Amino acid sequence: MVLLDGKKLAEKILGGLKDEIASARSELRLAAVVVGEDSVTKKFVAQKRKTAASVGIDVREYNFDAVISTNELRKRIAEIVHEKKNTGVIVQLPLPGHINTQYILNAVPPEKDADVLSARAVGNFAVGKSEIMPPVAGAIKAFFEEYQVDYRNKYAVIVGAGNLVGKPVALWLLNEKATFSIVRSSTESPVEFTRTADILISGTGKPNFITGDMVKSGVIMIDAGTSVDRQPTTHNPQPTTNNQQQSVIAGDVDFDSVAPKASYITPVPGGVGPVAVAVLLKNLVVLNKALSKFPPRH
Amino acid sequence: MVLLDGKKLAEKILGGLKDEIASARSELRLAAVVVGEDSVTKKFVAQKRKTAASVGIDVREYNFDAVISTNELRKRIAEIVHEKKNTGVIVQLPLPGHINTQYILNAVPPEKDADVLSARAVGNFAVGKSEIMPPVAGAIKAFFEEYQVDYRNKYAVIVGAGNLVGKPVALWLLNEKATFSIVRSSTESPVEFTRTADILISGTGKPNFITGDMVKSGVIMIDAGTSVDRQPTTHNPQPTTNNQQQSVIAGDVDFDSVAPKASYITPVPGGVGPVAVAVLLKNLVVLNKALSKFPPRH
Repeated sequence: MVLLDGKKLAEKILGGLKDEIASARSELRLAAVVVGEDSVTKKFVAQKRKTAASVGIDVREYNFDAVISTNELRKRIAEIVHEKKNTGVIVQLPLPGHINTQYILNAVPPEKDADVLSARAVGNFAVGKSEIMPPVAGAIKAFFEEYQVDYRNKYAVIVGAGNLVGKPVALWLLNEKATFSIVRSSTESPVEFTRTADILISGTGKPNFITGDMVKSGVIMIDAGTSVDRQPTTHNPQPTTNNQQQSVIAGDVDFDSVAPKASYITPVPGGVGPVAVAVLLKNLVVLNKALSKFPPRH
Repeated sequence: MVLLDGKKLAEKILGGLKDEIASARSELRLAAVVVGEDSVTKKFVAQKRKTAASVGIDVREYNFDAVISTNELRKRIAEIVHEKKNTGVIVQLPLPGHINTQYILNAVPPEKDADVLSARAVGNFAVGKSEIMPPVAGAIKAFFEEYQVDYRNKYAVIVGAGNLVGKPVALWLLNEKATFSIVRSSTESPVEFTRTADILISGTGKPNFITGDMVKSGVIMIDAGTSVDRQPTTHNPQPTTNNQQQSVIAGDVDFDSVAPKASYITPVPGGVGPVAVAVLLKNLVVLNKALSKFPPRH
């Protein structure tokens, strides 16, 4: 079993970026739109900020109250997007349930959409005319290239069809010469698919959803799930003295039972996550190059 | 076995359109861009023109020489698109090999893109924000609704990942709660997928590619393949007196061996084809309504 080392791969990608950014004429700034006060969301943004800083990219956070309306948020994002210094704009997901998420994402023009989530950026990507990839799909591709996984000639199964993992990965594989299946919460017997997969990519957000009995021997296991376990761990069932719950970022995979059967596996943390952040920052660099070549028409 | 009657379903869709168009204030005109002199392409356009005429939609054909350059064609399409009377614009595919097809398709703005092939229209569709569906996907959905096929709870296998069938159908099923697989020419053993499919959707353009031994008993067989058999038929191997070859539009399915095993099956001709044309015209009506509600900004 080979552990797919996301920290190391991220370092490699970031190392290349650092030089490129240092020699660039213009400054890069990523605007991060954050709605609400969720501590995990804040943690993710802090992580992006730290990584960005390490390569010379500034992250500017724009915070909004959780009760903001869709229309007000869209208006504010239009201003953020308009600000020239913001060379890229991301919206930290998920947004509160009352907000029309796709309408908000569509306010980011493709030339600043480093997350590839607006309809226009998704369209460019879907027809094979995008210079950048959605970060998680880009991260998985980077792993396959780094570890020489011939993914085009293997059977991939994608578990979950969400906006951040399943959907962009499906769009990517659709444009490659890959054979793949999509299974989701409505699928009657997911195990019939997962057990035959050469490559299993999971993005359900259900901790320990993928167990050893669901995979075949030799599987290439990509854990792109993100969920937050706010419960005290079973190892430490006593409430902590300051009454704070521990929040642990978990993947989809029951590592202990899957790893012994896998040929390759990404850990959580230290797998897809840091590479996706590196790809996001790389996207910002690529978009900025494209921007200086083809200034947007006004 | 139930034959999915495309002519009848198309009539039903067109019947609804006819009344709507008659009572509308503005006239609808579909501009059809045709490059080259292929007789089959001409036949398809003639079919669209005839069907459109039956509901009161005018089709204007714009013909270009097969040697036209990508840049020149793009410029000409920009003019066609700009013409107010053209309330919808389609580009008859395939284009000659030297032309950058997606660049040409992207010249059609989403509000006139009745075929849903430009990057922007595909993007709107992919994120679930399109009022219209790509014609073939829309046709398949119409069949499922008409014959009450509960496709969301069945396993679909899509054979082929082309721009007109496999890709749009995959995008559609991705946004529904459906479980599906994509197999393509690079897939090592397509039969392992096709034999387990509850719903089999084929769009490879290879006549008789799907044979009875490749499907399971009770399959719902959707033949969305289009190919042209220009050979004299085996039943009539003698050259005809006027030395013309017969050109027959063929699907992907070996009907004689698949039909006895199928619970539902679309014939070719008279299956997906006429319904896709009806959906295309319906799209034109829907887009025109959207257009009059939200005039595009200039």
